[in-house]
Amino acid sequence: MTLPAVFNPSTTHLSWSDRYQQVRSWSEKICQPLETEDYVIQTMPDVSPPKWHLAHTTWFFETFLLVPHLPGYEVFHPRYGYLFNSYYETIGQRHPRPQRGLLSRPTVPEVYQYRAYVDEAMKALLKEIGDRPDLKPLVELGLHHEQQHQELLLTDIKHILALNPLRPTYRADLPDSPPPTAITDRWLDYPGGLYAIGHDAEGEDFAFDNESPRHSVYLQDFWLAARLVTNGEYLEFMQAGGYSQPEYWLAEGWALVQAQTIQAQTIQAPLYWELIEGHWWVMTLAGLRPLNEHEPVCHVSFYEADAYARWAGKRLPTEAEWEVAAAQVPLNGDFPNGNLLEKERLHPAAAIATTRPDQLFGDVWEWTQSAYLPYPGFKPAAGAVGEYNGKFMCNQMVLRGGSCVTPADHVRVTYRNFFPPATRWQFSGIRLAHS
Amino acid sequence: MTLPAVFNPSTTHLSWSDRYQQVRSWSEKICQPLETEDYVIQTMPDVSPPKWHLAHTTWFFETFLLVPHLPGYEVFHPRYGYLFNSYYETIGQRHPRPQRGLLSRPTVPEVYQYRAYVDEAMKALLKEIGDRPDLKPLVELGLHHEQQHQELLLTDIKHILALNPLRPTYRADLPDSPPPTAITDRWLDYPGGLYAIGHDAEGEDFAFDNESPRHSVYLQDFWLAARLVTNGEYLEFMQAGGYSQPEYWLAEGWALVQAQTIQAQTIQAPLYWELIEGHWWVMTLAGLRPLNEHEPVCHVSFYEADAYARWAGKRLPTEAEWEVAAAQVPLNGDFPNGNLLEKERLHPAAAIATTRPDQLFGDVWEWTQSAYLPYPGFKPAAGAVGEYNGKFMCNQMVLRGGSCVTPADHVRVTYRNFFPPATRWQFSGIRLAHS
Amino acid sequence: MTLPAVFNPSTTHLSWSDRYQQVRSWSEKICQPLETEDYVIQTMPDVSPPKWHLAHTTWFFETFLLVPHLPGYEVFHPRYGYLFNSYYETIGQRHPRPQRGLLSRPTVPEVYQYRAYVDEAMKALLKEIGDRPDLKPLVELGLHHEQQHQELLLTDIKHILALNPLRPTYRADLPDSPPPTAITDRWLDYPGGLYAIGHDAEGEDFAFDNESPRHSVYLQDFWLAARLVTNGEYLEFMQAGGYSQPEYWLAEGWALVQAQTIQAQTIQAPLYWELIEGHWWVMTLAGLRPLNEHEPVCHVSFYEADAYARWAGKRLPTEAEWEVAAAQVPLNGDFPNGNLLEKERLHPAAAIATTRPDQLFGDVWEWTQSAYLPYPGFKPAAGAVGEYNGKFMCNQMVLRGGSCVTPADHVRVTYRNFFPPATRWQFSGIRLAHS
Amino acid sequence: MTLPAVFNPSTTHLSWSDRYQQVRSWSEKICQPLETEDYVIQTMPDVSPPKWHLAHTTWFFETFLLVPHLPGYEVFHPRYGYLFNSYYETIGQRHPRPQRGLLSRPTVPEVYQYRAYVDEAMKALLKEIGDRPDLKPLVELGLHHEQQHQELLLTDIKHILALNPLRPTYRADLPDSPPPTAITDRWLDYPGGLYAIGHDAEGEDFAFDNESPRHSVYLQDFWLAARLVTNGEYLEFMQAGGYSQPEYWLAEGWALVQAQTIQAQTIQAPLYWELIEGHWWVMTLAGLRPLNEHEPVCHVSFYEADAYARWAGKRLPTEAEWEVAAAQVPLNGDFPNGNLLEKERLHPAAAIATTRPDQLFGDVWEWTQSAYLPYPGFKPAAGAVGEYNGKFMCNQMVLRGGSCVTPADHVRVTYRNFFPPATRWQFSGIRLAHS
Repeated sequence: MTLPAVFNPSTTHLSWSDRYQQVRSWSEKICQPLETEDYVIQTMPDVSPPKWHLAHTTWFFETFLLVPHLPGYEVFHPRYGYLFNSYYETIGQRHPRPQRGLLSRPTVPEVYQYRAYVDEAMKALLKEIGDRPDLKPLVELGLHHEQQHQELLLTDIKHILALNPLRPTYRADLPDSPPPTAITDRWLDYPGGLYAIGHDAEGEDFAFDNESPRHSVYLQDFWLAARLVTNGEYLEFMQAGGYSQPEYWLAEGWALVQAQTIQAQTIQAPLYWELIEGHWWVMTLAGLRPLNEHEPVCHVSFYEADAYARWAGKRLPTEAEWEVAAAQVPLNGDFPNGNLLEKERLHPAAAIATTRPDQLFGDVWEWTQSAYLPYPGFKPAAGAVGEYNGKFMCNQMVLRGGSCVTPADHVRVTYRNFFPPATRWQFSGIRLAHS
Repeated sequence: MTLPAVFNPSTTHLSWSDRYQQVRSWSEKICQPLETEDYVIQTMPDVSPPKWHLAHTTWFFETFLLVPHLPGYEVFHPRYGYLFNSYYETIGQRHPRPQRGLLSRPTVPEVYQYRAYVDEAMKALLKEIGDRPDLKPLVELGLHHEQQHQELLLTDIKHILALNPLRPTYRADLPDSPPPTAITDRWLDYPGGLYAIGHDAEGEDFAFDNESPRHSVYLQDFWLAARLVTNGEYLEFMQAGGYSQPEYWLAEGWALVQAQTIQAQTIQAPLYWELIEGHWWVMTLAGLRPLNEHEPVCHVSFYEADAYARWAGKRLPTEAEWEVAAAQVPLNGDFPNGNLLEKERLHPAAAIATTRPDQLFGDVWEWTQSAYLPYPGFKPAAGAVGEYNGKFMCNQMVLRGGSCVTPADHVRVTYRNFFPPATRWQFSGIRLAHS
Repeated sequence: MTLPAVFNPSTTHLSWSDRYQQVRSWSEKICQPLETEDYVIQTMPDVSPPKWHLAHTTWFFETFLLVPHLPGYEVFHPRYGYLFNSYYETIGQRHPRPQRGLLSRPTVPEVYQYRAYVDEAMKALLKEIGDRPDLKPLVELGLHHEQQHQELLLTDIKHILALNPLRPTYRADLPDSPPPTAITDRWLDYPGGLYAIGHDAEGEDFAFDNESPRHSVYLQDFWLAARLVTNGEYLEFMQAGGYSQPEYWLAEGWALVQAQTIQAQTIQAPLYWELIEGHWWVMTLAGLRPLNEHEPVCHVSFYEADAYARWAGKRLPTEAEWEVAAAQVPLNGDFPNGNLLEKERLHPAAAIATTRPDQLFGDVWEWTQSAYLPYPGFKPAAGAVGEYNGKFMCNQMVLRGGSCVTPADHVRVTYRNFFPPATRWQFSGIRLAHS
Repeated sequence: MTLPAVFNPSTTHLSWSDRYQQVRSWSEKICQPLETEDYVIQTMPDVSPPKWHLAHTTWFFETFLLVPHLPGYEVFHPRYGYLFNSYYETIGQRHPRPQRGLLSRPTVPEVYQYRAYVDEAMKALLKEIGDRPDLKPLVELGLHHEQQHQELLLTDIKHILALNPLRPTYRADLPDSPPPTAITDRWLDYPGGLYAIGHDAEGEDFAFDNESPRHSVYLQDFWLAARLVTNGEYLEFMQAGGYSQPEYWLAEGWALVQAQTIQAQTIQAPLYWELIEGHWWVMTLAGLRPLNEHEPVCHVSFYEADAYARWAGKRLPTEAEWEVAAAQVPLNGDFPNGNLLEKERLHPAAAIATTRPDQLFGDVWEWTQSAYLPYPGFKPAAGAVGEYNGKFMCNQMVLRGGSCVTPADHVRVTYRNFFPPATRWQFSGIRLAHS
């Protein structure tokens, strides 16, 4: 069976300098509505303060490009390496992640100065990039790294604002969800057989190391839902006692539901749902809104997604099934119209009637039933930059397809996102499958 | 490619009554060397007191066979259902697992009375089993369940005794390791292609629900080490600084090594290793012994196994690779001679020179790089007894092949054992693979 | 104002050998009703396994008397010093307290052998004590130390049995509470002025170091309740919403009530109370009994005692007030008739009509509002044995008067017991005072 | 023995409006050097974000004065009552203390608007205060409450900056310590006898409820050190192995030293000390400075103070001893010259040669050996404002004398400060005593 070439739209028609400038400016555009105070705090260990994201992505370019490759470059501040290293053990000691919110300094203006300083130096380096083709993969990686953090910026900003009892609004001008046109779901069927999935590392297109190598998998016949599970459908699960019946839950998920319910008596709904005088509301980046039953359910953990699927008599797809289905979407079809970051909706939207799978890209990351493991023959990228994706191949689950806060330029058919199964603050939702 | 039929030796030549009696008596035989006090304590949440194992396996027969199927049966004690239920949510409330060691009552003699009472009733029920073929799968399940707990009994007894500063001996009469005959390892190669793995649920042979359905997988060419990694080889890893270099470790494993080292300054070796005046000793069921470099390394976590493999430039096998290799071992070959429970060695033994893969069955459970996930089309067993294997398909890794404390009658080519990756108190070791 | 001499009954009419034998045999008498399994477990960090108490008190004689003073004495086991040291830092390393219940060995018979071995050696040493007057204070200290652990033995045995869902009985033959004769309470008044309290270290009588020196205190006029607060009175506090109104509680106590209520929804009554089908029951050493409203309330924390007093518009007494009142009780009055260990009631009993303060000695330890601090001029006992009482003079409250499990020979007017304010497993109750 | 009247300088010569304005403006003056980011974070549960202090003290005036007593007053924001209530249970629900640093909103400018809004309304209310003498105690309380938080503001700002790896400076213009003139310490002796301590609630002067009633205490002869323990003396204790010898430590203190040393390998010195290339430095509000051996040691816990005293063969004073000594200091003597907030030194200073006790007021709070308990006859203030001092009379120790960040107008001879014994972030130090 022949698959179409991996679909990978990009901004490669731009010069390196322009691409660099365009990607970097998006990070600052995302932070533009923030108050200074919003940049500083860390509402849980998974969240990083926005100013940390702005500085860390800058540190990446400074550390992996400027210091080794721009002659005469001097670091902006000798301690920033300690403060803004995220994970890279071989680069040296680093500030503990759960303590990122304990740092009032550097101030927000100082962080922006840091960005400007590094951008200036990068401009100089990128002028020479024609003579330094070896640097292109690193610049590409730095840009994709920055885009990852753009998604995290919005995810973390939402958490920072949603936890505040004042329920502040990030942007009041975000559009409402479009009217739904596909109330009922449909099943799309895919024949079993041998398929190739993953990224061909020999190709030109960028992909993270964990997407390679491209390899064969054998799949059995499967069916995939044409659209995402909606808030209304999830509400049925809740009303049927979904959160109080252990038979739907993995043991770890059930333990979590019970522990959290005992502590706060609230883990009876997705994150950011609030029951106010008998009506469900949802905290969004535009503030509190009444629950829209046609929008995809969002901010559920893998445990909740899995329990919902079991209750519905279905299951979650594997990542291979998802990729096979996504690879068949015509190139000019769904993808560019996906509800991704550039749409500036910043909230999942109701599905549109279609005969093709809808909402594969954008809206919400889709939990799969696949653990995040190395592909056969996986090799981490060389050097310290490879000290990332491969390190987390344990106790995490794969999510696919991007969300309403993912840059369109960043996601791919082969893109593997991964989070621990209890994660709820990501824009994560549910697509059903069955055999 | 044609695989041989699944290899599954059994004691089915025995009558049901005799099999029942034989399996049950092994549990008591295992406990025979214990002092009363050893039956009572729980040295960590994963460990259960031996008397709990004896009572819980009995409760299983009482609850799933006698109460529903033996007319007039009265439970031995009305509160034992609460005390000795392990996990089954649908059966009712249960005593919290971490508090099993807080129960001095029932006493050990009372637990043995409970066993005798249930055995007497089971004897009556099994007499009628010719007329009740529907009960056979439940009896079979109860016996395999008891065998699982026989392995856990020895694993937990080892922990109970090893944690005691007096380092007491379980059995002083256990044999020494045989002299090694295969110092150097060899690589056995397997061609890639489509293979079938898993248990055919239509067959006669018993298997747990998680081993089914039998299904196709596509494997790439791979090589498997002919024998297990030895203590001597693992010592080289340690001496090369394996426990202090993050590049060999998954992020979670490295965090654990650092946390535990800070706390106790001892997680620099497998569990049960002790450095005494410059020499390594190992706690065994026969007491402290000098480290034997030819024996397989044992009591390592998945993180340690994975770090060792990375240091060695290799990787762990997948469970499919392991099963394909194990299925090719001739029926009258390795298996009956495996170092399993009935050998009463109760400690892994050095490999024997061979042209076939050695030590596949027995000695130590072999960590694979496969997360414990449902096979395509997996369906849990019906009823409360199905409320087990499927519930744990998250954040655990698969181990294969049985250990020196696994009943020979219990393990199979398709058998999937599973534990969280940090687990060390199991008899778990390492076999290498590469692509 | 002249106070009567400190009241201190004793068994000094006995020979040292007889006293030693008498005290030691009481420990074994207390354990006589236990099953072997009961000796082994530790139901919370404050509780020690009964076999640990038996061995630790023995280790005290071995370490502080036999090793330094009996020529040719050889320790029973070289590792027991590590296992059975409780606190003494200068004596060497010790087994961590919260892990005492993780030790199945030494077995119970081995612990009794240890006792017999040490008793035999002590018998030899005590024969010579006429020539070694310097040893008398150490023997005295060892005997009082053993008596402290006799009280702890019964306190811990109660916890071990009460936590067991089978609610086993320690001794079925314990007597019921006598019928009450003093339903209403009365207030006894004491004039203010300068009083002397504490033990005169120059005297002959034994006291712990923390009871000295005898010193002057200035007290204002005060009133003391003639009897203890009863279960019935405490029930009124509960029914008036005592556990749900923060105004009665110290901040720490209220935080504890809320935290524990959230976790288990049960901290709404004293420890060991159970509400069964609308009726209150109390777990006792004779098993579950219906709540007797005339008996003193028992197993309350300092926080509960303080909240009850505040609700009642009164306060707890200071330790000086208590001692002044107790010192005025005629020598042949209340004390010998107190409900102490030798009465073998093992449960607090209803008060008897009287014009004197009743229940001062025995029944329950009475929480005072005094923090446990050094008396002016306090000096710890010399050597390692002094490494105890003074070490805990922080974050503990003083209790006075002994309980129904305190040896009569052990308690004194000047005796200062002390526990952290959250403690509930002690036989602790409430006497009111006001100014 | 006659004591001088309680010494209590005040600003009562000012009008109520002027006093209000003066006290309130000090809070803002303290925050003036901060960056916006510094106002937001909470570096440990004990610390509050500076903007929280600014808002909470404002909420106090709004809640206890404006809402009940200013007709027509409307609260600034309906949710601020929830956000800025600190402890008062009867006032309603409140935001959890450890989560104060998770609030980016209200912003710092919004908090200043809140202050201006309330100050405007208070100005109106204070105009009428001649007709409302009943309000004077509440205004007085509000002003002293604000002064308490001024001290906490500086204490918390120091922690916020000191924890930052960039070690930022709060004010670079703070003066150095004056040259010492009293190298050796001297002992001042006080005869034993009956003394009166505490505040006479019938008097005119303000005091917190916990300072009353004035009452008699009997003291034995005692000696008090003329000055505080210095850094140089404390260094001797450290160099003599003070942090590694259990005999100097209370059991809880020793457990803490061991636990923290295991975790971070740093609890071997007072908080804010750093060993850099063999030399000790101290973090101050003026940034890192070399350790000055003549300055008083600061930022030690009660456990450290107590261990130091034991090592020195002395003890800490009781609060009664301290008060008796402090009450004898001539009114125009030490106090106005004390190193208190208005000196704007913000760091303890070396002692000055004197025949009187030096440094009693200001420099550092002096740990006493007195637990924080109610005085005989203590009654909490009526109403919700009384729901404070009395609630914490358990597990805390008394400190006396104010520190270099205490407003001079706020501290008194009878002032009782209290903190749990492990507290180190307060400006707390050591004065020795002996009997």
